[in-house]
Amino acid sequence: MRARVFVTLKSGVLDPQGQAIQGALGALGFAGVQSVRQGKVFDIELADGADAETELKAMCEKLLANTVIENYRVEFGSDRG
Amino acid sequence: MRARVFVTLKSGVLDPQGQAIQGALGALGFAGVQSVRQGKVFDIELADGADAETELKAMCEKLLANTVIENYRVEFGSDRG
Repeated sequence: MRARVFVTLKSGVLDPQGQAIQGALGALGFAGVQSVRQGKVFDIELADGADAETELKAMCEKLLANTVIENYRVEFGSDRG
Repeated sequence: MRARVFVTLKSGVLDPQGQAIQGALGALGFAGVQSVRQGKVFDIELADGADAETELKAMCEKLLANTVIENYRVEFGSDRG
């Protein structure tokens, strides 16, 4: 089973990396970029199991996301590159 | 206008970060994890413009993705956290 986990910063949390990218895009001549926020995406292949959803949630809570400043969302079966 | 850019490693490219995460998940007791591949996601807010798609493609080619080893995909109007 394939799952895709999205980990993004909670709104209101400063994203220095996103700001650096926004500055770089401006320096490269891309006008009109109002904001950039960077997150992570994990493509996870799991052995089929009844509680895959529970397992993935626990993986996010324990390792993949820092739930103090990050949100996570799990999509199943997506493999869209 | 909001756009979400996905940057993922091309298949066949080694992902040491993904392997490290896979090992850590195993150490945390999550059995059944067959593979983990990590990528990046950028949430970009752009001023509305006719050629937003072209601009975003150019941003990916020039800065956001290393097209030698990475693929990128642009989704418009997505804001699903």
